[in-house]
Amino acid sequence: MPAINTQKKESAFWDKQKETISVADLKSLQIAKLRESVRFVAKHSGLYKQRKKLLEHNASFNSLDEFSKKIPFTTKEDLLQSELYENLCVPKKNLVEMHSSSGTSAKPVYSFLTKQDIQKSSEYLARTWYMQGVREESLFAMMASYGLFSAGLLNHYAIQQIKSFIIPVGGSSALKTLGILREFSVDSCAAVASYYPYLIAMAKQNNIRLSDLRLRHIIAGGEPFSENQRCYVEKELNAKMYDQYGLCEINTGIAGECAEKNGLHILADYVYPEIVHPASGEVLGENQEGELVLTTFYKQASPLLRYRTGDITSISYASCPCGRTMPRISRIKRRTTDTLFYKGINIEKPYIAKLIEGLQGYLNPYIWQIELNSDAGRDEAVLKIVLEQGERENALDHITAYLQRSLDFKIKTRIFTADELARLGNSKLKNFLDNRNN
Amino acid sequence: MPAINTQKKESAFWDKQKETISVADLKSLQIAKLRESVRFVAKHSGLYKQRKKLLEHNASFNSLDEFSKKIPFTTKEDLLQSELYENLCVPKKNLVEMHSSSGTSAKPVYSFLTKQDIQKSSEYLARTWYMQGVREESLFAMMASYGLFSAGLLNHYAIQQIKSFIIPVGGSSALKTLGILREFSVDSCAAVASYYPYLIAMAKQNNIRLSDLRLRHIIAGGEPFSENQRCYVEKELNAKMYDQYGLCEINTGIAGECAEKNGLHILADYVYPEIVHPASGEVLGENQEGELVLTTFYKQASPLLRYRTGDITSISYASCPCGRTMPRISRIKRRTTDTLFYKGINIEKPYIAKLIEGLQGYLNPYIWQIELNSDAGRDEAVLKIVLEQGERENALDHITAYLQRSLDFKIKTRIFTADELARLGNSKLKNFLDNRNN
Repeated sequence: MPAINTQKKESAFWDKQKETISVADLKSLQIAKLRESVRFVAKHSGLYKQRKKLLEHNASFNSLDEFSKKIPFTTKEDLLQSELYENLCVPKKNLVEMHSSSGTSAKPVYSFLTKQDIQKSSEYLARTWYMQGVREESLFAMMASYGLFSAGLLNHYAIQQIKSFIIPVGGSSALKTLGILREFSVDSCAAVASYYPYLIAMAKQNNIRLSDLRLRHIIAGGEPFSENQRCYVEKELNAKMYDQYGLCEINTGIAGECAEKNGLHILADYVYPEIVHPASGEVLGENQEGELVLTTFYKQASPLLRYRTGDITSISYASCPCGRTMPRISRIKRRTTDTLFYKGINIEKPYIAKLIEGLQGYLNPYIWQIELNSDAGRDEAVLKIVLEQGERENALDHITAYLQRSLDFKIKTRIFTADELARLGNSKLKNFLDNRNN
Repeated sequence: MPAINTQKKESAFWDKQKETISVADLKSLQIAKLRESVRFVAKHSGLYKQRKKLLEHNASFNSLDEFSKKIPFTTKEDLLQSELYENLCVPKKNLVEMHSSSGTSAKPVYSFLTKQDIQKSSEYLARTWYMQGVREESLFAMMASYGLFSAGLLNHYAIQQIKSFIIPVGGSSALKTLGILREFSVDSCAAVASYYPYLIAMAKQNNIRLSDLRLRHIIAGGEPFSENQRCYVEKELNAKMYDQYGLCEINTGIAGECAEKNGLHILADYVYPEIVHPASGEVLGENQEGELVLTTFYKQASPLLRYRTGDITSISYASCPCGRTMPRISRIKRRTTDTLFYKGINIEKPYIAKLIEGLQGYLNPYIWQIELNSDAGRDEAVLKIVLEQGERENALDHITAYLQRSLDFKIKTRIFTADELARLGNSKLKNFLDNRNN
C-alpha cells in the first residue's frame, strides 16, 4: 500500500520543504540571512556600536568562512556588562514580551521580543516539537515553569501552532502533576531533564503506580543528562525520551533529537551554528568537539552575532535516516563553566555524575548536589544525596568509602528526601553550588 | 479645544461601540445569545443531558425574566460530581488549552478551551485591561502565576491584544519582582490582591525604597480586599489600585473597576449576570445584594448555564460617569462559603478582617490566617500574624487581650515573618484554613 506509506512519511515533517532543504541551498540561505543580520545589528544595536564600522565594512562576505573570519564573537560577559536596552534594535514600544536567563550569575540576561519575533519563534520551534512526536491530537503537558523562563511561554506558543491540547502544568506540585498525567492520559510532555527522576521518586514515595500513566513522548531540556538517566526515565515511564536544546539569549527549543536519537537537529535556517575551539576561537570542522557559537536570523529586538554559548558539542552535516537535512549537534555533555576549582583540583561535572551512577542501588543517581562552603576560612565540600527507598542509613558507610576511594579530596555526605532536595519544583537543581566567598 | 477632548474620550475605550451600547440593545443581544447558549448546551453537553428535554423545550424564551424562570441553575457541586469530559461540548481534538480552579476542594474544577474560546476571551477581556489603564505603550508586569491558574495565561493573551510590553513575572520571588519593577520602570501590573501587602512588607524588610518604583495602575483580583487595604497599597506604592473579578469556571477578568472605582463593569455581552437570593434562588432586582449567577455566551468547550458563583454582590444598570453602559457589580465582600463553623459559632471573614484592621500599628492587617485544628478530638483555633516592623513580641499581649474582648471563642496567636506566612509566593494566602477532621 504505497499510498499509505507516502502519507505516513509526509506526516513525519512539520514543514517538509524546509526540513529537507539541500545542504548547498541551506548554506546559500545562511549566507544571505547572515548578511542581513550583520547589517541590521550594525545599523540598530548600541551594543555593537563600537564595532559598527567593522561590521558595515565586512557585511558583504561571500562565504561562511569569511563570515567567521571577519565578524567578532559576542560573549555573555558583553551582555552582562551592557546597559538594559543597549542591544535593543527596535523602538521600545514594539516590545511585547521578555524573558530572562535563569543564570547562575547574580545579574540575569534579558531577551526582548517583538510580535514578529514571537511569530517567527513559534513558526520554527513548532518543527522541533512536531519532530519529537507532538501532534494536533496530542495531549501535551508543559511541565516547565512559565513566566520569565523562556522555555515555558515560547514553547507553549510553538505548540499552539500544532494545535495540540496543551495542559499548562507549569509549577504545579509533583503530586498534582502526577494526578493530571494520569487523569488526562497525557501522551506527551516537556520538563527540565532533572524533573523526571524527581517525579518518579515522588510517585514511588507516594505509592502512585507509574504503569497507570500513558506517556509516549517525553521531552527533556534545560540541562545535560546522561544516557543512563535517559534509560532509567524511559524504563520507569515506559516512553521515549528526547533531548532538546536551547538558551534564553538565542531561543529555547532550537535543536532536538529526532526518533533516531543520534544528535539534535538544529534549526539552521533560524540560527547559524558554528563550533569553535573554546580557547583559541578557531572554527572547527565537522565532528570536532568545541564550543557552540550561534548567530540569530529572526530576532529583531535582541539579535546576537556569533554568540558564545559556553556549551561543548560537535556538528555533523551527514544525512540522517529520518530524512531531515538540518545538521545535528551532538548531545551537550558539559558547559565551559561545568568545573569547580576546589583546593587546587578541577572537579568536572561529567566525572562526578559518572561516579555517582556507580552508586545506583544505594542512592538515586540523578538527584544530587555538591555544595562548597567556606566556614571561618576553611573550605568544605558536601555531597547531598537521596537514598533509594528501602535503603537504610548505613548505606552511607558504603557510599562514603566508595567516594573516598575515587576522589582526591574529602567530601561529607548528607542524606535528603527527594522532596527536600528538589523542593524548588520545576526549577533546575544545580548539581554544583559554590557558596565560598571569593 | 473640543477636538482634543473628543480624542481623549475616544481613547478611553477599547471598543467604544460595544462598551456604550444602550441598555435596551444590550438586553436584546443577551436574549439572543442566551437562546444560542441554551440550544448549544442542550445539544452537546452530557452534563445537561438529563435536562435536555427541558432545555430544548424552553429555549425559545422571549425575555430575560422568562430565561431565569425556565432554566435551572448549575452549581459547583454539579461540576465536582461530573465525569472529566461530561460537560465537553466539542470533539476532544478541538481542545487547545485548559485551566483549573485553585479551589479549596480536593477535586479541582477544570475549564477547557478551543482556539475560538481563547480568541473570544482575549477579544473581550482586553476591554477590562484597557479600561484599567493598560495601553500599547504600557510596561506591564503580570505577577499572577501562569500555568493552570487561568488568570495568568488568559489575561496574558488579552493584554497581547493591546500590544503592551508584558513582563511575565509569574511566580518569581518578591525580591526578583521588586528588582524588575524598578529596573524596567514598570507602570502597570496585576496580581492576586494579597500579594501587594506581601510585596510591600518584603520591600521594607529588605530596605528597598518603594519611592523608586514607577507604578501607576495596579490591578488586583482573585480575592476580596477591603477599602482600607486598597488605601494602604495605593499610598505605599503611590498608584491607583483597581479591583478585577473573575473565576476559572467562567473566565478570569470578566469585570473590573473603571477610574470611578464605583463598582465593577461586567462584560455583559460576554456573560449574562443575574443576582439571586442565596437560599431561595429567587432573582433579585437592581442594587439588591445576593449571589452572582453567570451564563456564558462564548465558551464552546465548557459552557455553563446559570452558574452559581458563590460570590455575594449586587448589580446596577445606572449610567456611569465613565460613559460605559455595561452594568456594574458591587465589589465582592464575601463568598457564600466565607464562614467557618467552630464550636457552634459562625466566624465570618469580613468580621475577622475588620477586627484585625483594628490592630493596625501592631501587626500587618492584610497578612493573616486563622487555622482550625483538631488534636485528639479537641478543636483549637490559631491566628497567624505578622508583626509590624519594630514591634516587639510583647505586642502579643495587647493583641491577645484585644481579640479575647471581641471574640466569643478562645484563639491562640502565633507570630510569623511575612515571608514565612506568604511563602507560597503568588498563590492566594487562605485567610481561613480548616484542618479539622470532619
